[in-house]
Amino acid sequence: MLLRTMRYLWALMVGAFVAGASCAQTVDALPSWNDGAAKARVVAFVQAVTQTGGKDFVAAADRIAVFDNDGTLWSEQPMYFQLAFAIDRAKAMAAKNPALAGKPVFKAAAAGDMKALAATGEQGLLELVALTHAGNTSEEFAQIVREWVKTARHPTFKRPYTELIFKPMRELLDYLRANGFKTYIVSGGGVEFLRVVSDELYGVPPEQVIGSSIKTKYEVRNGRPVIVRLPEIDFIDDKAGKPVGIHKFIGKRPIAAFGNSDGDFEMLEWTTSAPGARLGVIVRHDDAAREFVYDRDSHVGRLARGLDEGPTRGWTIVSMKRDWDRVYPD
Amino acid sequence: MLLRTMRYLWALMVGAFVAGASCAQTVDALPSWNDGAAKARVVAFVQAVTQTGGKDFVAAADRIAVFDNDGTLWSEQPMYFQLAFAIDRAKAMAAKNPALAGKPVFKAAAAGDMKALAATGEQGLLELVALTHAGNTSEEFAQIVREWVKTARHPTFKRPYTELIFKPMRELLDYLRANGFKTYIVSGGGVEFLRVVSDELYGVPPEQVIGSSIKTKYEVRNGRPVIVRLPEIDFIDDKAGKPVGIHKFIGKRPIAAFGNSDGDFEMLEWTTSAPGARLGVIVRHDDAAREFVYDRDSHVGRLARGLDEGPTRGWTIVSMKRDWDRVYPD
Repeated sequence: MLLRTMRYLWALMVGAFVAGASCAQTVDALPSWNDGAAKARVVAFVQAVTQTGGKDFVAAADRIAVFDNDGTLWSEQPMYFQLAFAIDRAKAMAAKNPALAGKPVFKAAAAGDMKALAATGEQGLLELVALTHAGNTSEEFAQIVREWVKTARHPTFKRPYTELIFKPMRELLDYLRANGFKTYIVSGGGVEFLRVVSDELYGVPPEQVIGSSIKTKYEVRNGRPVIVRLPEIDFIDDKAGKPVGIHKFIGKRPIAAFGNSDGDFEMLEWTTSAPGARLGVIVRHDDAAREFVYDRDSHVGRLARGLDEGPTRGWTIVSMKRDWDRVYPD
Repeated sequence: MLLRTMRYLWALMVGAFVAGASCAQTVDALPSWNDGAAKARVVAFVQAVTQTGGKDFVAAADRIAVFDNDGTLWSEQPMYFQLAFAIDRAKAMAAKNPALAGKPVFKAAAAGDMKALAATGEQGLLELVALTHAGNTSEEFAQIVREWVKTARHPTFKRPYTELIFKPMRELLDYLRANGFKTYIVSGGGVEFLRVVSDELYGVPPEQVIGSSIKTKYEVRNGRPVIVRLPEIDFIDDKAGKPVGIHKFIGKRPIAAFGNSDGDFEMLEWTTSAPGARLGVIVRHDDAAREFVYDRDSHVGRLARGLDEGPTRGWTIVSMKRDWDRVYPD
């Protein structure tokens, strides 16, 4: 009896030990990444900043990683997904309201005529955003986005937009979080659009999404408080606006930044130019078979300065074609 | 030997069990709060929203609690601590720069003449803020605040401002966090001022501080990127601005809100008017012996509507005199 009890206790102890040991085992947290310089660089960086007592150690509270969204976490061709949303919304609104249908920008949007849409210029696009994104409450807008996301399909891939996130990047987000990082999205896109899907798609809660915004107003309607969305730009979170947005929302300088276009240049520059271990990564769209190929001459996600200066600044250029074993989730 | 080993293992097991049991013991997490309706209400709310399977259960991700700062987490009389900072800074700047010393608002500030300062009106105060808070980089400004905090003393209590935080509220912040809440400060004060001390004073990291802000600009100076603080108001996080700030930064509706003045009214209204268990708390300054007494007629921290409507809205009015066993840390 004594022996049996002892064996039982021993088994418990050993079991606990084995469980602990298996946690410490090296498991590939980035299975969708091919072995190569890019993956090695990311892993080495994470190991360096998490190694207690190491020269590059960074306290968990300061492990801030920032990710661009369009073209970095999901695709952005042939047009930003949020522009597709705006166009679909314009069509739906024009169908109900003939006065709107007469506006050139709505006409172009409803016809899916990208050339005519571009011809309306910045003014036209701002009008499109104001009419399709404002004038409702924050709750109503979130509901409209939720409905759209359920039914909309990407024009080329014929799949829901939410299936066009990059699997390797989702793994990277999880990997960083498992190593004590706080992951933020810093997008040129609209913050209230992205927050609807960020948690489900990326495991990033709304409060860790920074983006462009329109002004809002607090109002009590029939005793019920609402946040009303106004047709006025509040903040453009792009280019030099990204470090400003990061400083405004986080108040700390990130130690890792991930982007894909020159719109992310200043974010990578701000992140990587401080002392200590820093990681700057640019995702390059060079995979014609599985996604798209574009850089210097693209209107969407133009990448030129990042290609020219990135390597000398120590940034890692990820080739989707070479470095990613798979692009999208199954 | 066998027996000895067994005893050793047994001691380990029992030790682990006892340690586990002691964790589950009821310890008073709010020792600076006197027993009474206010404390009971707060504890009942936290128990309700954290009870798995209970009708009021709230998932940890949605346990957002927002706290005003001036008058709620630390004192705000005889003037906002940040105004004391601005005045000290104006004095230091005027001493170095005679051109500044000639400006009426600087003259009044340097003389400590509150009446003359008030007479400069909103324009004068904005000028004071612009001159004392802008024109430097974010890093320089943070350093100036850090230095000030070390040496400045409260005019009445002759203690560092950082010792004038409310101990019961600090306990409350810790208690909420121990129960899975994410705690935010939502202050009418300047966000970059408060972020310098928020972590040390309240355990609230910079990214969970929302406040009023001036505009900033990203700039590369001699190859070194900086965030430059501009003399232009970006956002006033007060009154109806508080729900707007909460929505902008968090993107979720809080379930608990703590304030002390009518500047917090809309924040409490926004928080408590949604379905489900909600907590609204107003700290009332009614303790002449240990702090200050003021409400309806005060220029700083005026509280009238909250007193009139709070109780019918289900908000808890905390009496500092009755409900707090102690006010400040030792």
